[in-house]
Amino acid sequence: MSTSADQDREEGLSFSPKFDASDLLTCVATDAASGEVLMVAHMNEEALRKTVATGEAWYYSRSRQALWRKGETSGHVQRVVEMRTDCDQDAIWIRVEQTGAACHTGRHSCFYRKVEAADGGARLSFVDATGQFDPKAVYGK
Amino acid sequence: MSTSADQDREEGLSFSPKFDASDLLTCVATDAASGEVLMVAHMNEEALRKTVATGEAWYYSRSRQALWRKGETSGHVQRVVEMRTDCDQDAIWIRVEQTGAACHTGRHSCFYRKVEAADGGARLSFVDATGQFDPKAVYGK
Repeated sequence: MSTSADQDREEGLSFSPKFDASDLLTCVATDAASGEVLMVAHMNEEALRKTVATGEAWYYSRSRQALWRKGETSGHVQRVVEMRTDCDQDAIWIRVEQTGAACHTGRHSCFYRKVEAADGGARLSFVDATGQFDPKAVYGK
Repeated sequence: MSTSADQDREEGLSFSPKFDASDLLTCVATDAASGEVLMVAHMNEEALRKTVATGEAWYYSRSRQALWRKGETSGHVQRVVEMRTDCDQDAIWIRVEQTGAACHTGRHSCFYRKVEAADGGARLSFVDATGQFDPKAVYGK
């Protein structure tokens, strides 16, 4: 059942992001050139505001419970080419120019393994096995 | 700090999806032809299993608290061309062939509005204003 508030959120032009119970939005970052999904992460209100204001991706790390400028340690920043929101404004899609690799494992995308049906379950296979850098050299661990 | 379990999850070939506190994974569906992000939704274990087994997208609706075969009401099914998982296996990316429109508003993608900086905040503008069908005619509400 749609309410008037739902209708405004879906068809209006005011940006009213709908944060979840943890005060976060889901954000999908894709490579602006290839369309590949690079990563899925979260933004709190401050990360969202900084991303809009600076044109570079900021996220909120749930594991570290901290605001996080993408690339602040590795230098692998994301320049935002376009930002969109979805019908109910609880998700963000950013098309980015990725410097270096999006993934902490050294791969361009975090989605470096395919899932395929096998033996009644599923198995993985690598799409990108090796990555572009040695994480130990970049992050020192 | 990485543990041996983290390392297995990131570099191994066994599929060990990491469900969140609500027993869900985040799933991003993109158009296999254009690369456009169509929608962001959630899968529980059963939705994931059915998606792998049938090659069509199944989700779990948090608002309706129910398993949901994409397109079961509208006919706008998603045929899965490729499924991937990310480094820590808590997100799924499916590349799909979308019949009709992914969005319940009648638009091909749920991400039909751009977010742009304006007056110290942000404003929206339509990328796809009209959509492909009349939701009332398809969903009867």
